[in-house]
Amino acid sequence: MNSNRGAVVALSGGVGGARFADGLGGVLSGDRLTVVVNTGDDFEHWGLWISPDLDTVMYTLSGEANPALGWGVRDDTGNAMEMMEKLGGETWFTLGDRDLAVHLRRTAALKSGESLSAVTRSMSRALGVECEVLPMTEAPRPTRIELRDGTRMEFQEWFVGARAQPEVSRVVFEGADEVSPEVSSAIEAAEIVLITPSNPYLSIDPILSLNGVRDLLAQKLVVAVSPIVGGKAVKGPLGAMIPALTGKPASARAVAEHYGNLIDGIVLEVGDGGAGFDIPVWETNTVMRSGDDRRRLAEETLIFAESLR
Amino acid sequence: MNSNRGAVVALSGGVGGARFADGLGGVLSGDRLTVVVNTGDDFEHWGLWISPDLDTVMYTLSGEANPALGWGVRDDTGNAMEMMEKLGGETWFTLGDRDLAVHLRRTAALKSGESLSAVTRSMSRALGVECEVLPMTEAPRPTRIELRDGTRMEFQEWFVGARAQPEVSRVVFEGADEVSPEVSSAIEAAEIVLITPSNPYLSIDPILSLNGVRDLLAQKLVVAVSPIVGGKAVKGPLGAMIPALTGKPASARAVAEHYGNLIDGIVLEVGDGGAGFDIPVWETNTVMRSGDDRRRLAEETLIFAESLR
Repeated sequence: MNSNRGAVVALSGGVGGARFADGLGGVLSGDRLTVVVNTGDDFEHWGLWISPDLDTVMYTLSGEANPALGWGVRDDTGNAMEMMEKLGGETWFTLGDRDLAVHLRRTAALKSGESLSAVTRSMSRALGVECEVLPMTEAPRPTRIELRDGTRMEFQEWFVGARAQPEVSRVVFEGADEVSPEVSSAIEAAEIVLITPSNPYLSIDPILSLNGVRDLLAQKLVVAVSPIVGGKAVKGPLGAMIPALTGKPASARAVAEHYGNLIDGIVLEVGDGGAGFDIPVWETNTVMRSGDDRRRLAEETLIFAESLR
Repeated sequence: MNSNRGAVVALSGGVGGARFADGLGGVLSGDRLTVVVNTGDDFEHWGLWISPDLDTVMYTLSGEANPALGWGVRDDTGNAMEMMEKLGGETWFTLGDRDLAVHLRRTAALKSGESLSAVTRSMSRALGVECEVLPMTEAPRPTRIELRDGTRMEFQEWFVGARAQPEVSRVVFEGADEVSPEVSSAIEAAEIVLITPSNPYLSIDPILSLNGVRDLLAQKLVVAVSPIVGGKAVKGPLGAMIPALTGKPASARAVAEHYGNLIDGIVLEVGDGGAGFDIPVWETNTVMRSGDDRRRLAEETLIFAESLR
């Protein structure tokens, strides 16, 4: 751990981003790290306000995450789900029993006028998360999936309900584009901004779509970690989305091209580099199978970023 | 089962009333029985609308009830509670994981404009309850406990939070006194109304406090089952409440006096009868330890009531 390092902001979606952020948490002191999390996947279900990416980050950083799934809480049970099924309620979205406490607490806090940032902070602290975890927005900013025929699906309806199968023609961000003031301040104060290996279209673009964020990032040293390894997404629908949205095969280069001049460097899998990158590239093993993998990748990414100053 | 019997309405609170209602369900066909349930204990907790007596009746009649406790769901787990404790949330009121599904569904239904009766019916049917279970009111009618010093406690704060220890000087019913229209119709159509062995002050009086209910009952054959056995309450705080509220020792006679000319007969424990009752009395074993006990007590009570016509 290098205590002379400046502040780092990591932009994150769910599982991949959360694991990378966990690695950063292992090599940076808590007061140096802020994880800014996509809330475009948030939705209401069973009358509860669910923030899947915030929860995945919070569970992963606190050690509460289900290690096999990457999302949800370890050793969780599905008794409420089972009863909900008996009652004829909706069960297409999995909610574990322990997990439910988080949704209940968030929903009650929001209802009583607390901000999403405040209740996220209070829950993260209670679970022992040392760094700052911030939702990208306070108000809903729902991501919609536009299909070839022009129809729009709600994100979870597409992602979970339809298993991300319908081909995406465009990703649309609805609601207010106001970034959380705490996110702006954190980016302003950051020495390095890292784009974690999350889905660029579904997890990072929602953050970039917010008013002023791209301008703030233009002032910063920004390094991305590629979520594409050997032409495939480590997890999720990105492998199919890149060809559908760009007409090009899925590759780390396509990710770099997507971010364009927003990033100053990219970390990618050994063998995924080669010609055609007009920014510095760091090749390493990017698949995070263990806690050690997460920390090593985080450390290498920070050293690479620092080398670009 | 005697299919020539007329319609029966049972007025019920929680565990004792639910067990007696379950006995009635065993000897009457579903279309002959309506259980009208106290909603004075209802309250909001974790942002959910909880109807403890409705749930106890629904769980008991569907066979879902925890047989040891009498309330809550059998084989339930407390993982949401455990997580809520970690999060620093309130855990003074026990909510099991399976149980949570019911509160979630009720809360979402009420929020979407469904009535409490409608969502209760839909959940009861889904769980296999054959008779009609009706909340006494659609709108909140909270019971408050007034103490000697004039302060008022919310019901669950007193009952669960303070373990019903602070001495009651008066029981007060707040909110609107409008009875559910379906309850009025059920009582009007009933041949017999049974007051189950629930707490008269906390479970039955809330129902009797509603506008028009006493007048409707005055037209009916009404029989009560005493919740006091050998001078003690089978369950709950009634044993201490009778002396506190009437200055007399707890007894089946005190229960009969409380209901006064509202009832036409009372069923009580062998040995609890004797002189001093100015209404017909049926002495039997009233403690319900098994399903057979419930059915036998229900059957005897019906036969006794029919004998009073």
